[in-house]
Amino acid sequence: MKNICIIGATGSVGTQTMDVLRREKGKFNLIAISANSNYNKVIEIIEEFNPKYVVMSEKNAFNIIEDYIVSNNKKITLLYGIEGMEKIAQLDEVEIVVTSVVGMIGLTPTMKAIEAKKDIALANKETLVVAGELVMEAAKKNGVKILPVDSEHSAIFQSIQGNQLKSIKNIILTASGGPFRGKKINELTGITPNEALKHPNWSMGKKISIDSATLMNKGLEVIEAKWLFDVDYNQVKVVVHPQSVVHSGVEYVDGSVIAQMGTPDMRLPIQYALNYPNREDQIAESLDFYKMGQLNFEEPDIETFKCLKLAFKAGEIGKLMPTILNGANEACVDLFLNKSIGFLQIGDIIEEAMNRFDYDQELTLENIIRLDKEVRDYIYKSYK
Amino acid sequence: MKNICIIGATGSVGTQTMDVLRREKGKFNLIAISANSNYNKVIEIIEEFNPKYVVMSEKNAFNIIEDYIVSNNKKITLLYGIEGMEKIAQLDEVEIVVTSVVGMIGLTPTMKAIEAKKDIALANKETLVVAGELVMEAAKKNGVKILPVDSEHSAIFQSIQGNQLKSIKNIILTASGGPFRGKKINELTGITPNEALKHPNWSMGKKISIDSATLMNKGLEVIEAKWLFDVDYNQVKVVVHPQSVVHSGVEYVDGSVIAQMGTPDMRLPIQYALNYPNREDQIAESLDFYKMGQLNFEEPDIETFKCLKLAFKAGEIGKLMPTILNGANEACVDLFLNKSIGFLQIGDIIEEAMNRFDYDQELTLENIIRLDKEVRDYIYKSYK
Repeated sequence: MKNICIIGATGSVGTQTMDVLRREKGKFNLIAISANSNYNKVIEIIEEFNPKYVVMSEKNAFNIIEDYIVSNNKKITLLYGIEGMEKIAQLDEVEIVVTSVVGMIGLTPTMKAIEAKKDIALANKETLVVAGELVMEAAKKNGVKILPVDSEHSAIFQSIQGNQLKSIKNIILTASGGPFRGKKINELTGITPNEALKHPNWSMGKKISIDSATLMNKGLEVIEAKWLFDVDYNQVKVVVHPQSVVHSGVEYVDGSVIAQMGTPDMRLPIQYALNYPNREDQIAESLDFYKMGQLNFEEPDIETFKCLKLAFKAGEIGKLMPTILNGANEACVDLFLNKSIGFLQIGDIIEEAMNRFDYDQELTLENIIRLDKEVRDYIYKSYK
Repeated sequence: MKNICIIGATGSVGTQTMDVLRREKGKFNLIAISANSNYNKVIEIIEEFNPKYVVMSEKNAFNIIEDYIVSNNKKITLLYGIEGMEKIAQLDEVEIVVTSVVGMIGLTPTMKAIEAKKDIALANKETLVVAGELVMEAAKKNGVKILPVDSEHSAIFQSIQGNQLKSIKNIILTASGGPFRGKKINELTGITPNEALKHPNWSMGKKISIDSATLMNKGLEVIEAKWLFDVDYNQVKVVVHPQSVVHSGVEYVDGSVIAQMGTPDMRLPIQYALNYPNREDQIAESLDFYKMGQLNFEEPDIETFKCLKLAFKAGEIGKLMPTILNGANEACVDLFLNKSIGFLQIGDIIEEAMNRFDYDQELTLENIIRLDKEVRDYIYKSYK
C-alpha cells in the first residue's frame, strides 16, 4: 500500500487520479485531499476513500464539510486553505503527493512536500514554470523523485528510461495545436470563451483549455520540460501534431527518436507516475494502429499564437520573467473567461506585463509570490 | 578500444558497419573479417582497417587475397570458408561479433561465438528464425548479449530499455509494405526481379529486397522478435507503415506505446548495437518533424502476401517448421532472381515444402542443417 496525498482532488486530474486509485484498489491508500469549493465531490471522495485529512480553501465549502463531518461522526481532520495544503503535503505517513491543483497556488505545498522528502506526481505545471530552478534543486537535495503527470512530460520521461540525460539532443514536444490551429490573427478576433474551451482531443479543465487555445499551455510546458529534463530552450522543439497520438519524445545524440504514443487519456500518465517504475494493467484504451489512419506533423505558427513565442522568451530571459508571464496569463485567462477581455488581448497583455515589470530580481519563493501578486493586481485593475 | 569481428564484411550491413567504425575511429579495433567472393572490397578493408584475420569463402577470391597478402607482405592470417568463420568468431581477443552475413550460413559461426562468450550484434536474422530457441538458450547460459541490428528489432530493443520484458503486451512491428503494397494477386503475376528489387525506402542487399517485396522479410522478423523478446506470436502485431519513420515499438500492459523513430539508415542501429548502452554522435541524418508530412498505418494484406501468413504459421507450429520455411525461401529467392520461377511461385513453393517435409523432429543444429539442405535440394531439383 502506497500512501497518497492529493492537492487539488476535485479538478480534472484529481478526478482521474481517483479513477486510477479506484481501479487499483488495495495498492493505494488515500490519506489526504485538498479542494477549493466543490464540497459535493469532496463528500463523494470521503464516502468512497475515507481519507484522514481534508482541506477546503473556500470558506462556505469548509463550513459545509465541517457540518458533514460532525453530523456523520467521521474521524477526519479538517483544515483550511493554503496552510492546510502545506500541512497535508508534509504528513509523516504520506509517501507521494499528487499536485493536481491548477495555477501558482500549487507552489508552496509542492516545495513543502519536497522538503519533507515526499515523491511528487507533478501535474501543477505552474510550479515548475515560476520556480523550476528552486524545485529541481530542492528535489535533488532531498533525494525526491519528480514524476511528471502532464501527458507530454510523462511521454518524455517514459522515452528517457534506460537512457542518459546527457545523451538528449532535443526534446520533441508535441502540441495538438488547439481548436484554432491553422487560423490567422484576423480569424481570431471575436472568439468567445465557449469556442476556446472546445479542445479537439483532450477533456480538461477550463484554464488549461484556454491555454491550449492560445498555445500558452505549450509555452508553459516548454519551460517545464527545460527544468524537468535539464536541457536548454533551443533543445525543446515544439511540433504540432493534431491527432495527439504521439504524446512527445526525445531525439538522442545519435539521431534516434524515442517517443511515447497512446490514446489521449490522462489516466495513463497518472497511473505511470503512481506506479513508477512499474507498469500496471491497462485503464486507458489501446491505440489501434490499424484504425489510426494518418498522423500529421507541422511547425507551430508562433506569429499568430504569440503566447508560445512569449513563453520561450520568458524562459530564456529567466529569473522572474516566467513568474510575470505566468501571473499575467492566469489573470488574462480569468478575465477572458469572464468576457472582460478578448481572445487576442491575452497575448498582448502578457507582453505588456513582461515589458512593465522588473524581472531582474533574485529567484526566491518570496519574490515569486510578491511579484506574481503585483502582476495580477495590475492586470485586474487595468482590464477588469 | 572494443575488438570487433565481422562475419559478412562486404555485404550491405557489413559495409555500413565499416562506415560506423570509420566515423568512430579510436573506439573500435577491427580484428577479423569474413567475406564470400568480393576480393576488391576485402582489399580495401585491409588497406583501411588492417585486420589480423581474413576469411574468404569462394576459392578463386581466396587465392587472389592470398596472392595479395604475400606480395604486399601483410601480417594477416587467411582462412577459408565456414571453418574460418567459426574460428574468427571465437578468437580470444574479439569482444563483439557482428553477424551480417545473409542466410542460414550465419548459424554455426553465431553459435560458436556465443559459446565463446562473445556479445553478438545480430544482423543475420535467419539464425534466430531457424534456431531461435537454441541461440537464446545458449546466450542466456553464456551470459552473452544479443544486440539486434535489424532496424525493427533495434527499435524494439531501444523501446524496451528501462522497462521489464514482463510488461510487454504487444510488439508493434512496422513494415513498409515493400514495392507492391496495395497490389492484388492478379497484379503480381509477371513481376520481374528488377521490379521486386526496388525497395521504396531502404537500400539493402538482393535477398532482403526480394523478401521485402514478398513480405517474407517481415515474416522472418516476426519469428526473430518472438525469440529476441520472449513473446508469443499473437503478441507480435505487424503494422504496414509506408514511410518507414516509426521503425517499430512496444505496447505495454498499461496501454502505453514506446516507439523508436528515425531516418531509414542502417548505420543508426549498427552504431547503437556497437556502443550499447551508450549513444554516440550522429552518423545518420536527423528526422525533420516539420518536413515529415504525414505518417500512415494500416493492416497488412496477408491474403495477397501469403509469405507473411506462412511465417506466422511456421513459427506457431515450431520445431523444424521455421527451418523448412527459411530454407525453401532462400532457394526460391535465388530461383526467382535467376528467373527460374515467377514472383507468386515463391509463396506457393514454400507452402508446398511446409506440407512435404517432416518438421516434427528434435531441434538440434544437426537436424536444422540437414533438413535445410534437403529442402533446398528438393526445390532446386524440382524448379531449376
